[in-house]
Amino acid sequence: MTTPSFFRFERDGAVVHLVMNRPERSNAMSADFWTELPRLMAELGRDPSVRCAIISGEGRNFTGGMDLSAFADIAKLFDSEPGRAAYAMREVILDLQNAFNAIERVPFPVIAAIHGACIGAGVDLITACDMRIASADAYFAVEEIHIGMAADVGTLQRLPKLIAPAVAAELAYTGRRASAEEAKGFGLVSAVHADRDAVSVAAFELARAVAEKSPLAIAGIKRNLAYARDHSVADGLDYIATWNGGMLRAGDLMAAVQAKMAKQAAAFPDLLRST
Amino acid sequence: MTTPSFFRFERDGAVVHLVMNRPERSNAMSADFWTELPRLMAELGRDPSVRCAIISGEGRNFTGGMDLSAFADIAKLFDSEPGRAAYAMREVILDLQNAFNAIERVPFPVIAAIHGACIGAGVDLITACDMRIASADAYFAVEEIHIGMAADVGTLQRLPKLIAPAVAAELAYTGRRASAEEAKGFGLVSAVHADRDAVSVAAFELARAVAEKSPLAIAGIKRNLAYARDHSVADGLDYIATWNGGMLRAGDLMAAVQAKMAKQAAAFPDLLRST
Amino acid sequence: MTTPSFFRFERDGAVVHLVMNRPERSNAMSADFWTELPRLMAELGRDPSVRCAIISGEGRNFTGGMDLSAFADIAKLFDSEPGRAAYAMREVILDLQNAFNAIERVPFPVIAAIHGACIGAGVDLITACDMRIASADAYFAVEEIHIGMAADVGTLQRLPKLIAPAVAAELAYTGRRASAEEAKGFGLVSAVHADRDAVSVAAFELARAVAEKSPLAIAGIKRNLAYARDHSVADGLDYIATWNGGMLRAGDLMAAVQAKMAKQAAAFPDLLRST
Amino acid sequence: MTTPSFFRFERDGAVVHLVMNRPERSNAMSADFWTELPRLMAELGRDPSVRCAIISGEGRNFTGGMDLSAFADIAKLFDSEPGRAAYAMREVILDLQNAFNAIERVPFPVIAAIHGACIGAGVDLITACDMRIASADAYFAVEEIHIGMAADVGTLQRLPKLIAPAVAAELAYTGRRASAEEAKGFGLVSAVHADRDAVSVAAFELARAVAEKSPLAIAGIKRNLAYARDHSVADGLDYIATWNGGMLRAGDLMAAVQAKMAKQAAAFPDLLRST
Amino acid sequence: MTTPSFFRFERDGAVVHLVMNRPERSNAMSADFWTELPRLMAELGRDPSVRCAIISGEGRNFTGGMDLSAFADIAKLFDSEPGRAAYAMREVILDLQNAFNAIERVPFPVIAAIHGACIGAGVDLITACDMRIASADAYFAVEEIHIGMAADVGTLQRLPKLIAPAVAAELAYTGRRASAEEAKGFGLVSAVHADRDAVSVAAFELARAVAEKSPLAIAGIKRNLAYARDHSVADGLDYIATWNGGMLRAGDLMAAVQAKMAKQAAAFPDLLRST
Amino acid sequence: MTTPSFFRFERDGAVVHLVMNRPERSNAMSADFWTELPRLMAELGRDPSVRCAIISGEGRNFTGGMDLSAFADIAKLFDSEPGRAAYAMREVILDLQNAFNAIERVPFPVIAAIHGACIGAGVDLITACDMRIASADAYFAVEEIHIGMAADVGTLQRLPKLIAPAVAAELAYTGRRASAEEAKGFGLVSAVHADRDAVSVAAFELARAVAEKSPLAIAGIKRNLAYARDHSVADGLDYIATWNGGMLRAGDLMAAVQAKMAKQAAAFPDLLRST
Repeated sequence: MTTPSFFRFERDGAVVHLVMNRPERSNAMSADFWTELPRLMAELGRDPSVRCAIISGEGRNFTGGMDLSAFADIAKLFDSEPGRAAYAMREVILDLQNAFNAIERVPFPVIAAIHGACIGAGVDLITACDMRIASADAYFAVEEIHIGMAADVGTLQRLPKLIAPAVAAELAYTGRRASAEEAKGFGLVSAVHADRDAVSVAAFELARAVAEKSPLAIAGIKRNLAYARDHSVADGLDYIATWNGGMLRAGDLMAAVQAKMAKQAAAFPDLLRST
Repeated sequence: MTTPSFFRFERDGAVVHLVMNRPERSNAMSADFWTELPRLMAELGRDPSVRCAIISGEGRNFTGGMDLSAFADIAKLFDSEPGRAAYAMREVILDLQNAFNAIERVPFPVIAAIHGACIGAGVDLITACDMRIASADAYFAVEEIHIGMAADVGTLQRLPKLIAPAVAAELAYTGRRASAEEAKGFGLVSAVHADRDAVSVAAFELARAVAEKSPLAIAGIKRNLAYARDHSVADGLDYIATWNGGMLRAGDLMAAVQAKMAKQAAAFPDLLRST
Repeated sequence: MTTPSFFRFERDGAVVHLVMNRPERSNAMSADFWTELPRLMAELGRDPSVRCAIISGEGRNFTGGMDLSAFADIAKLFDSEPGRAAYAMREVILDLQNAFNAIERVPFPVIAAIHGACIGAGVDLITACDMRIASADAYFAVEEIHIGMAADVGTLQRLPKLIAPAVAAELAYTGRRASAEEAKGFGLVSAVHADRDAVSVAAFELARAVAEKSPLAIAGIKRNLAYARDHSVADGLDYIATWNGGMLRAGDLMAAVQAKMAKQAAAFPDLLRST
Repeated sequence: MTTPSFFRFERDGAVVHLVMNRPERSNAMSADFWTELPRLMAELGRDPSVRCAIISGEGRNFTGGMDLSAFADIAKLFDSEPGRAAYAMREVILDLQNAFNAIERVPFPVIAAIHGACIGAGVDLITACDMRIASADAYFAVEEIHIGMAADVGTLQRLPKLIAPAVAAELAYTGRRASAEEAKGFGLVSAVHADRDAVSVAAFELARAVAEKSPLAIAGIKRNLAYARDHSVADGLDYIATWNGGMLRAGDLMAAVQAKMAKQAAAFPDLLRST
Repeated sequence: MTTPSFFRFERDGAVVHLVMNRPERSNAMSADFWTELPRLMAELGRDPSVRCAIISGEGRNFTGGMDLSAFADIAKLFDSEPGRAAYAMREVILDLQNAFNAIERVPFPVIAAIHGACIGAGVDLITACDMRIASADAYFAVEEIHIGMAADVGTLQRLPKLIAPAVAAELAYTGRRASAEEAKGFGLVSAVHADRDAVSVAAFELARAVAEKSPLAIAGIKRNLAYARDHSVADGLDYIATWNGGMLRAGDLMAAVQAKMAKQAAAFPDLLRST
Repeated sequence: MTTPSFFRFERDGAVVHLVMNRPERSNAMSADFWTELPRLMAELGRDPSVRCAIISGEGRNFTGGMDLSAFADIAKLFDSEPGRAAYAMREVILDLQNAFNAIERVPFPVIAAIHGACIGAGVDLITACDMRIASADAYFAVEEIHIGMAADVGTLQRLPKLIAPAVAAELAYTGRRASAEEAKGFGLVSAVHADRDAVSVAAFELARAVAEKSPLAIAGIKRNLAYARDHSVADGLDYIATWNGGMLRAGDLMAAVQAKMAKQAAAFPDLLRST
């Protein structure tokens, strides 16, 4: 594991904790963020002993979103031939998106543990996560519209596929703040806890509960939810039948049943490393 | 109508009632369940006098889900060549899914009337229904993850296309119980009633109300909601225009308007039997 | 701007207000409605000084839906050869749908400001809008089923892509009235105000807030939300990268940042007229 | 195996031969055809000892297509309420289509061995097959347009996904006859042989060659070609990776390699029967 | 029918002939072309007595493609704010595309009768047509690449859905000329005739043959081929079943059968005008 | 540029030449192949001075396909828990596929210059390329079926989207050799040359011709052909309008026109490096 600088990395058994660690800037996503996140995810995704991850933020806020200084280099593009600048700009955006797509590619769930501000690219980030919990003081804002841009690293694509699209649209057009309580009502966060510490405790509990499950079944749920989101029901059913045709074998089932009879927790083996 | 053994079959005018009738096992879905459900649905689907169906469970619970004994034969597959076992297992899962797909294929709505436990494959079942109502003591759990497997007969595909996908994901990863009241908040059930009897009364009221509508219009709503779910808005609009181009004629409209003027209930003819 | 007869047209700066103005018939959608709406939308869509529109209804209700007299001519089709009648009927429905699709094609958001009854084709109308707010006395009903038909101008396609599809299905099968408060809970309306006047005030506030944003960013949000609704997340990400590759330039961003520093509202230029 | 009446059924090892056997009517597809074909396919699909099927026609022609007498019952529908007749007619067509879809569902390839006329529904039939060979005197015509109808049991859907769509369109609009030689040029048939007997010999040779391959690999090719046809390349790649993840094991590979070294034909076990 | 200036309009019974009539500029597509084509198509599409159309070119060539002078106004966009210019440019291109989409929207087939050069936007044009025939001296070139642009009014989208995509790619990358004979081999044109006069004669023969068919069946083929091109086979089958459920009635069938018995040409009524 | 070992790397101006350089094993694709190809493609894709690439093979053959020794490590997976082995195997296949997907991701065309054998994974490779030319002695075989497997790194997905799917199916089921001449007839290769040297000369000519075009236009063609292949025509048209909205500017057009007037070759600037 290479040492990141934007993130502080912690590990507790099968659970990893990625802490955005730039509190003096409200964890504004600098260039380091965008290169470290996909690299970390790729590394963790290849380590079968990792079963769940938590992302949180140091300091008073989860994250204030994109650090605009990261745009400095990009702006230079616009001095060049405009058609080629458009092409290069498209590639830049695809690269940024890829940082969040990396969360979808790991075989384990990633939990966003949110407190304080979660705005701009912070919303893009949490919509790429598998579950979200928040403290009572958390708030959410798709505030890109306030700086004259359409959010382009995932919110407009993923938020309406997590909650009622009518709500996602209102948030995107107005850029208004939604409270943790509202977010709970939308279904965006699955629980609201008293404060940052309580969120942290709850996130670890949730992560450990996930980590005790069969990692093969968890990986199957993750991939099949993503597939189902993007396909018809008929396609989704065929896909999971093909998936479980190969991956549902007696082992985990028996381990679970026997553990239940013995009133113990089942121990499921890790995934295999493919290479 | 062949006589089923897992289900008790009741009929009240245009409404049929399928009662899962294995209360001593919490209506665990045995092999009979999986063969009878699609057969019953196929038969009812060919009978134009049926206009609505209710599915409920005898005893203390709606259903505890799959009867694991139904897996016994399946497990034998795994003694054979593993590639062929994967192929055969895929076919087994497709067959199981088909039992629930049969609910989508009948031209009338199927109402799930739920009390007590509705877990595992019970959730797969109710997500294939067209409407759901529950008693206050009902609870829902996508608990396949507790036995080391990814649910593969419909929940992961249909639940996120009924309620906020963010909520569906949390339920699938944690396997936790959601109460009837929560389910009402998610939109999963459209009403919560005091107890099992009240749910039964309400289900029949709802079913009779549906049965009094034009069965052609109801069939059109059912098919077009399914089509819309799986296609773009533009495609969905074209499809219903093509559909109503042939199927919207003056008859039912006039019957409805005249009945309204006469302050009577309109009488709509049954669908035609195609063969 | 040609003068409409069904609509009363008002303009306040960059905000236009379309008032359905047939209060004596609860703004029932006569033939004029169906020809004027797409024409008005096309004209407004070509006028880059328009940044937001509001649709409301004069009198006691938003709208009672389709004026059945508009069907009179259509019914004559059914005296002709039935296959050709089906073809012609399909075209009629596509034309009606097109009136609402026109709302999706303008580059600015359209806000439905609803009070009293919003039923039948009124629901089709508001689901084609970008945001919806309502008065406390507003109610919503997909009541086509009461007159023996499957709604065919958009509700069955768009409503389940705005709110939980399970809720949309129940509303479509039962045709029941949902209150403003319920609609708020579903996410269908984003706010409920005391009465029609309060809705009107709020609609203008919302519209002016939208009109102050970058119209380019707003147009980007509108198009990308529609695209995302109808495509996979991966496709949606690629599309917005391609979109912003050409359309995200430093201008609006700098205007926004400088205005923020100066604690002023940013002034964003209009879109260009393409022809 | 129940005894069919329209088809003559022959078996040679793992190869089955279905002969349309109504030569006095040019194998016009009577009601028997439409019920027997899906039943036969379902039965053969459950028999793992079947590895390839051939469909041919007795007498001077492959088939003249639909026997219009099969429409007699259908026409009665049109005396009823026209909306319900449209609904029933749609179901009739879906049933007819289903007869050909059954060919897609069996796990083994079906070869059409064609001589003389292959017209109307005959073209629908052969486009649902996996390979096609023909005699020099064979000809093909999408001749439904000559009797005032748009072909509705598969040609318009499958033919443009087998050959250049521009060619398929011209055949559909004109209803003209295309010779075997032309069909070879289009890619529709993979070989042209001198006469009916030569086609028969070649079909058996081809079928036996297929039957000697791994039936698991053959089933994988069949399913993945169908999936790829209907999905994006990215989706298709993911699907076959999921498929072969479970189904590609060392067994067949080693059998093939060892047989090659020993200069013998490999013997691959049958598929497993899933139920 | 308003009088066009770019096109010369001729009519022969149910067949209309649109002649690009700017021979001194090789029928280069000026601004008039782009406004007249969609207007003409819309008008013809509303006239049920039109059953087939032919497009050809006056003078030595079919068309040399886009008249670059039509770009003059467009280029002015680029003096404006670049993000808004990109938005406006996108709209311009959508408008141009729309001119060719209009060909897809009419209910009758449009035949391209090609001689001499068919290059650049000429290829976009003919790929939007339903059938294509050519003279021996015709040649085809996707030559946009020679002027530094990716063709954006249809060729890259439609050509690979008419002929082998591998061939379409080579033509697009190289911009090379393909002869009529080659185009026949690709399936792009269905026949090659000696010279322009022979093409004209053949086009009228083909058009008259189409015009003698049932216009309802022809419209069904046209719409269902377009639908099938853009959807899965399963979707396409469902769509045509829904289509023919309403539109296939006994009338045309009987007319065709009786005419055949009487050895006469059947007379099929026109489509109905929907408004 | 890191030095590859499987490939020999040559560069001639804007054209790069990747030679598979393991002639003693007919360029069987060893582990090195699978890691070097995506790495090389990624590096070249970031180098805007590269405008076209050629892939060819040293020795007597293009490639004999996968080196089965590369499977040795993979086979070890099968000693582990079978469900986890299936998951790991799926990942292995996705990784292999990714090597060919890398060809689709570079912004310039990749030309396959083929002689001798092109079999098994060699076919997967060339179907991921943008153009293909061959020598007269070249032959092609989807021969995976001969070793008991369904090809899983691209052939079944891409071949039927390059040539007539009916032909692709026959090649996949039979594994038979198709000659260069046949492949030309299918459209799979765009030219057949006398021998390997002639292919090499032709490949460089073709590559240099491509390299002289606007690299922005070429990148636009490549991306839009891939997009069009996987989407509906309507979607494809919208995508290229959005694409060219940002990327079509006057520069390249003017350069091309001025060069044409001056009877010189136009000089187009390279793409911009995005990072």
